[in-house]
Amino acid sequence: MNKHALGIDIGGTQVKMGIVDARGQLLGRIEHPTPQKEGAEAALLEIASVAKQLATEANIPWKDIAGVGVGLPGFLDIPQGHIVQLPNLSWNDVPIRKILEKALALPVTIDNDANVAALGEAWSGAGVGVKDLICITLGTGVGGGIIANGGLVHGSTGMAGEIGHIPVKQDGALCGCGRHGCLETIASATGVMRLMQEAIARGEQTILHHDESDPLTTEKIFSAAKDKDPVAQEVVQQAVDALAYVMSILSLTFNPALFVIGGGVSKAGSTLFEPLEAAYHRRTLSYVAKGVLIRPALLGNDAGLIGAAGLTAKGEILR
Amino acid sequence: MNKHALGIDIGGTQVKMGIVDARGQLLGRIEHPTPQKEGAEAALLEIASVAKQLATEANIPWKDIAGVGVGLPGFLDIPQGHIVQLPNLSWNDVPIRKILEKALALPVTIDNDANVAALGEAWSGAGVGVKDLICITLGTGVGGGIIANGGLVHGSTGMAGEIGHIPVKQDGALCGCGRHGCLETIASATGVMRLMQEAIARGEQTILHHDESDPLTTEKIFSAAKDKDPVAQEVVQQAVDALAYVMSILSLTFNPALFVIGGGVSKAGSTLFEPLEAAYHRRTLSYVAKGVLIRPALLGNDAGLIGAAGLTAKGEILR
Repeated sequence: MNKHALGIDIGGTQVKMGIVDARGQLLGRIEHPTPQKEGAEAALLEIASVAKQLATEANIPWKDIAGVGVGLPGFLDIPQGHIVQLPNLSWNDVPIRKILEKALALPVTIDNDANVAALGEAWSGAGVGVKDLICITLGTGVGGGIIANGGLVHGSTGMAGEIGHIPVKQDGALCGCGRHGCLETIASATGVMRLMQEAIARGEQTILHHDESDPLTTEKIFSAAKDKDPVAQEVVQQAVDALAYVMSILSLTFNPALFVIGGGVSKAGSTLFEPLEAAYHRRTLSYVAKGVLIRPALLGNDAGLIGAAGLTAKGEILR
Repeated sequence: MNKHALGIDIGGTQVKMGIVDARGQLLGRIEHPTPQKEGAEAALLEIASVAKQLATEANIPWKDIAGVGVGLPGFLDIPQGHIVQLPNLSWNDVPIRKILEKALALPVTIDNDANVAALGEAWSGAGVGVKDLICITLGTGVGGGIIANGGLVHGSTGMAGEIGHIPVKQDGALCGCGRHGCLETIASATGVMRLMQEAIARGEQTILHHDESDPLTTEKIFSAAKDKDPVAQEVVQQAVDALAYVMSILSLTFNPALFVIGGGVSKAGSTLFEPLEAAYHRRTLSYVAKGVLIRPALLGNDAGLIGAAGLTAKGEILR
């Protein structure tokens, strides 16, 4: 990629966009509330005008931008550049590539949010120089973006990387997907909160509590675990064990050199990463786990827009 | 690929080789006992001379062959064309590419046996036209070869596809890898035999028995299951459930359009495939499992040599 690229990360509440150079470095960025009221086409035209405003503010001539990449939270027909459904935005059946290519006069590529975050971390974040890596986002749910031999793995219908729904516990809690015991019922922020609330409700001896005036948060749970609260430690260990189990399976299947862990839960730092490293190496065949690194994500909220910009290089940036 | 290619599948007892055309069709094949006595280099030179003999017998001028692919059972440095270790042959640290390129005067590419079998089935077997597929071999162990977006997935150190070692049962039987409850302790030929022998030893009511004069075989177990022997049915169901569990995880991670099942156990036909389809769809998120096919391998023992020949096309054959 010789020119700059524009990355647009469309979320449920905010649109983040940025212009990056050929090495994935941000030259300018902007945030804008996701247009909610109008239809998808009107919203996309508003986003396009913000993109042009960003280029102007960053003093980047439009002709220096080679293409546009867009990260989207939902079901996509990636080859066709088509939104099938974005549940959070109620956008259904939207020819996003056609709309944005007309509005911006640049080639447009789309992909899902977990994939662009993985691509961003691989291009200029925690995974620079690594061709086989898996990016796991521990947030409200658990998302996965997989890069094998320098390219995003999409699968046959774009569903690759749905690692939050790998079953880890028989007869476990009900998941949003309608099944029981999925990874994200335990290792997401929601999962950790649920486990702790259940322990409190059972009357277990902990310094934590949960009421309306002083609600429980994942930060408080990890902080209590760090302070050796045994109930909080047990909750963290459950999340760590479930995650390590899935990572050991991913090692046996994809054999990545690196796991990048992002999302809100990853901010717990060593309280998460130390037991996770130990559990991963305990659970994984040593000749597969040897040398595998587990690192926190580096780009935070910018991973998505940087990776989206990286889509324009058509898979060449990591080869 | 415009020219023909030579594929060599080196196994513990037999070397199978064949010359295929640009569409993966066999033009000639030969089998030769794996040279055991001498060192690896002498063995490879013997294999090279058999390859030349094959071309002569098949009336194919050597200049019409574009390259050579080799499938090998063990640990390889694929980019370097180097054998790290083949445990069954006691070949260690062998520069196989260098040796064969000198002997054959053609470019040589190597890969492991599970991968070349998957490539063979994808190129001209059960997976023709499919870009995302997983080939599972149920033999003495359980092997996996993964093709994503038309290319073999190797992972960072060539260990991708080691699906036989995905844990499926807590505190399960000891596996050859030193761990417990791996898929291959249950769903391989060895695993099915073990489960049946244990049931017989417990005195369960079955038409099957196991003694030196009339030893148990997997064929007998599947045949008894087909005849509704309840103990044999239970053993088959255990193998099917373990395999379906791993296939559901593979669907959530790689999202293949097709699973190709090969190896000795797959010869059980509908006694295996009917409960496997049912268990897979019962266990897998419907929006991921929708439309996914499970088919028996078509190329049998030729999958490896055909896929090995396909290596010479450098990943272009399925794009």
